[in-house]
Amino acid sequence: MAVAVRPETAVEPIQVTMTETAPGEASGKPVANKVTIILAHGDFESVMAAMIIANASVAMEQETNIFFTFWGLFPLLRDDVRFSGGNVMQKMLFGMNRGGISHLKTSKLNFAGIGPAMFNALRRKYKVASAKEMLEIAQEMGVKLYPCQMTLDLMGFKPEHLIDGLEPPAGAAAMLGFSTGGTTLFI
Amino acid sequence: MAVAVRPETAVEPIQVTMTETAPGEASGKPVANKVTIILAHGDFESVMAAMIIANASVAMEQETNIFFTFWGLFPLLRDDVRFSGGNVMQKMLFGMNRGGISHLKTSKLNFAGIGPAMFNALRRKYKVASAKEMLEIAQEMGVKLYPCQMTLDLMGFKPEHLIDGLEPPAGAAAMLGFSTGGTTLFI
Amino acid sequence: MAVAVRPETAVEPIQVTMTETAPGEASGKPVANKVTIILAHGDFESVMAAMIIANASVAMEQETNIFFTFWGLFPLLRDDVRFSGGNVMQKMLFGMNRGGISHLKTSKLNFAGIGPAMFNALRRKYKVASAKEMLEIAQEMGVKLYPCQMTLDLMGFKPEHLIDGLEPPAGAAAMLGFSTGGTTLFI
Repeated sequence: MAVAVRPETAVEPIQVTMTETAPGEASGKPVANKVTIILAHGDFESVMAAMIIANASVAMEQETNIFFTFWGLFPLLRDDVRFSGGNVMQKMLFGMNRGGISHLKTSKLNFAGIGPAMFNALRRKYKVASAKEMLEIAQEMGVKLYPCQMTLDLMGFKPEHLIDGLEPPAGAAAMLGFSTGGTTLFI
Repeated sequence: MAVAVRPETAVEPIQVTMTETAPGEASGKPVANKVTIILAHGDFESVMAAMIIANASVAMEQETNIFFTFWGLFPLLRDDVRFSGGNVMQKMLFGMNRGGISHLKTSKLNFAGIGPAMFNALRRKYKVASAKEMLEIAQEMGVKLYPCQMTLDLMGFKPEHLIDGLEPPAGAAAMLGFSTGGTTLFI
Repeated sequence: MAVAVRPETAVEPIQVTMTETAPGEASGKPVANKVTIILAHGDFESVMAAMIIANASVAMEQETNIFFTFWGLFPLLRDDVRFSGGNVMQKMLFGMNRGGISHLKTSKLNFAGIGPAMFNALRRKYKVASAKEMLEIAQEMGVKLYPCQMTLDLMGFKPEHLIDGLEPPAGAAAMLGFSTGGTTLFI
């Protein structure tokens, strides 16, 4: 089971592979859409898919929102959070499902971390940004990131557990409100 | 592994935590959207997400539909159904995947029922309605619930196996028809 | 564990069970919708759901697209592909997740293939087309099938590994472009 994972080099340039011309752009017509992603899963593939679609959308100058809920909220936790608060059940759930966008596990073929390591090696080889890099790009480009209020409450997470630069926590009704009239994906 | 689960009290008030003001409501403008959920997964998180979004939508006075298909049909079975009919394969599938909205398992961290028990305890602590309560609220508020005809056929389920108050069984084409022009989520 | 699976007969007629009349058809009004499916999961249920919805949509004379990405790309591989190319990691990933639409595994209750065998037996009993048949029907009826460029790159798949009759590979931005204004489902 010796898997040769190419070590990450410090100077590797970050490139996002989403440079296709969208319909309407070439012809000068505006692309009048809005994209909202409800991210309810916290696995590597779901988070990557959400980030790739969100960043492609915002690069097309479309209003783009991500609503982080259920397991999908965990990537918004700081990578270094240790979560000392909460009750016994909240501690157990956090202990079994560590948060932070640098700690994603694949939904299948995880094998104690070999899955994510392989995918990340392939990702670097083909110059695809990491989930953490994509999240930072998303924030810089104006994707609005909403943590789900109910999930925060249920898990006992406090604002200081979350990364900076998020929108205020929102509920399902607010999400339905700001997503109306656009494309809404449940990932 | 002693998890202190707070026993459910009989007089606990049911509160649904989706009271945010939606865009358009405060300003008097109508929210002209329609929400259709295709519920294809039968796990605790998927069913809860579908119910929370549907009830938020119907509370905003939007037309709201849920199309229950594949594993997502099983929560529409009566909690007390024993399913004595069907052929060998249908019996095996049902035996391995008991139906009824009170018997949901989490998609991860299930651990022989500890996962759902913990989530339900947290849910009660923070006054979030159960999946069963949300389903009843959905029906009272006018969410239309469509069982998938093909799934009924494949599993050998009969109308008497299902809860009351459902719409007639529908197929994929009918679902595409009544969802057209609104927000459609595949959960 | 002796499961009686009815052997597939060579002359069995293929019937697709999606003959409901869609709203608008009976009244003569056009159904002005477009359906795009982002298929990101490669399990039996997800692929079947995508195919059933896509074929129902195209039968309603709607523009219908499927964007095959992540694990969802694997069903586009030829059933007989052995994938001798690629690097060590790509070989391992392919070895653990064989492609081809005839090799789908259920997302749960797979049990070394018993799950898919049971579902396929029930499917045949009730005259529902197989995933492979539905894919062929989709192509004949004009559903546009787009493989995801990034997934092809990451996995090292070449055009000769894929089935015939596909659209050119596309990225997330292109997918957002051609799906704009219609119903988009992430499956």
